[in-house]
Amino acid sequence: MLIFAMPVVQERCEVQTKGKGTYEITRQIQETIDKSKINSGTVTIFVQHTSCSLTMMENAAPAARRDVERFFEQLVPENADYEHDDEGSDDMPSHIRMVLTRTNETVPIVDGKLQLGIWQGIFLFEHRRDPHRRKVTLTIIGE
Amino acid sequence: MLIFAMPVVQERCEVQTKGKGTYEITRQIQETIDKSKINSGTVTIFVQHTSCSLTMMENAAPAARRDVERFFEQLVPENADYEHDDEGSDDMPSHIRMVLTRTNETVPIVDGKLQLGIWQGIFLFEHRRDPHRRKVTLTIIGE
Amino acid sequence: MLIFAMPVVQERCEVQTKGKGTYEITRQIQETIDKSKINSGTVTIFVQHTSCSLTMMENAAPAARRDVERFFEQLVPENADYEHDDEGSDDMPSHIRMVLTRTNETVPIVDGKLQLGIWQGIFLFEHRRDPHRRKVTLTIIGE
Repeated sequence: MLIFAMPVVQERCEVQTKGKGTYEITRQIQETIDKSKINSGTVTIFVQHTSCSLTMMENAAPAARRDVERFFEQLVPENADYEHDDEGSDDMPSHIRMVLTRTNETVPIVDGKLQLGIWQGIFLFEHRRDPHRRKVTLTIIGE
Repeated sequence: MLIFAMPVVQERCEVQTKGKGTYEITRQIQETIDKSKINSGTVTIFVQHTSCSLTMMENAAPAARRDVERFFEQLVPENADYEHDDEGSDDMPSHIRMVLTRTNETVPIVDGKLQLGIWQGIFLFEHRRDPHRRKVTLTIIGE
Repeated sequence: MLIFAMPVVQERCEVQTKGKGTYEITRQIQETIDKSKINSGTVTIFVQHTSCSLTMMENAAPAARRDVERFFEQLVPENADYEHDDEGSDDMPSHIRMVLTRTNETVPIVDGKLQLGIWQGIFLFEHRRDPHRRKVTLTIIGE
């Protein structure tokens, strides 16, 4: 008899934010990969929200991240004349910033490691002013 | 001797649009997952077009979706001075709006269900004025 | 006796750019799929950089691509007042343009072929002025 467990590993985790900004989550993802024992494949990161998102970003220069955050403040301002404005002035811009970035990213795993470039990090992009506890699902598929 | 067939289920489906706007396709995707019997893994949704796209979005407030649609009308206007303008004034903005959103989304499946947040829906974003029949491919990988 | 060939194939390749612009990489990806013998599944394309990105785009009309490139030049100008400006005026706009497009795309494989629409191509979007040798990882998962 053969029992074959298909190599899919899923883990739900949470990311605490302090309000608007980018929060690196690369290390948590790598730790989940380490535990999974999967050596070669992909990890799909997914946020279960419509007012925060995911983005890859330069992980060395905090000024570069501040420029990204400022760009989105200007491109999708809080004070535009939104029809949907009953949940606060930062609500509708959050949805649009989410649409312009991503809810899921899929990153290769090679030799048990996230196959990132030296300056690449994976960030949760919080678009609301208040702190939030954000749910993230990791799905690792491979061998 | 055992030959193990990897659990990949693919289905092509079509989405009829009535012109510009966002069309929720979450239920059709869930129905395909139900038929696939895959319990744990991911589904990759892919549109085979360059003038419509995919986005996750708030699925409760239609006003929020109208704000998103209006934002893209303003950010990528029809009346800009495009070089490629021989297929109508809504053609080139369609391509740019597609580039700014997504052609593919990968969503986790947990316990046979799309692992979405309570307000999250998956939408086809039609960028052309005329109705179109859009081709979508679903690829479910898991166990 | 058990014969189990796990269906994950990974390949790293490089794309030489001549500076800013979009470079089609569809054929290279298809060739890697051909070699992998995987018939049904997905390929995840991933660039290991934060100053170039990936996008799907119309592959027939070069004017359409020039319009996309021009749009990003205007939306994310070089001469904005960026805080992070020590690596040249094209550096910070590169990061923002990457954030607005993608670092990874996942495309279905059906009958051994990329399941693209007739006008769809996969492009590396170079955001820096100088030529670069860009690292791309392909992960093919399927059966």
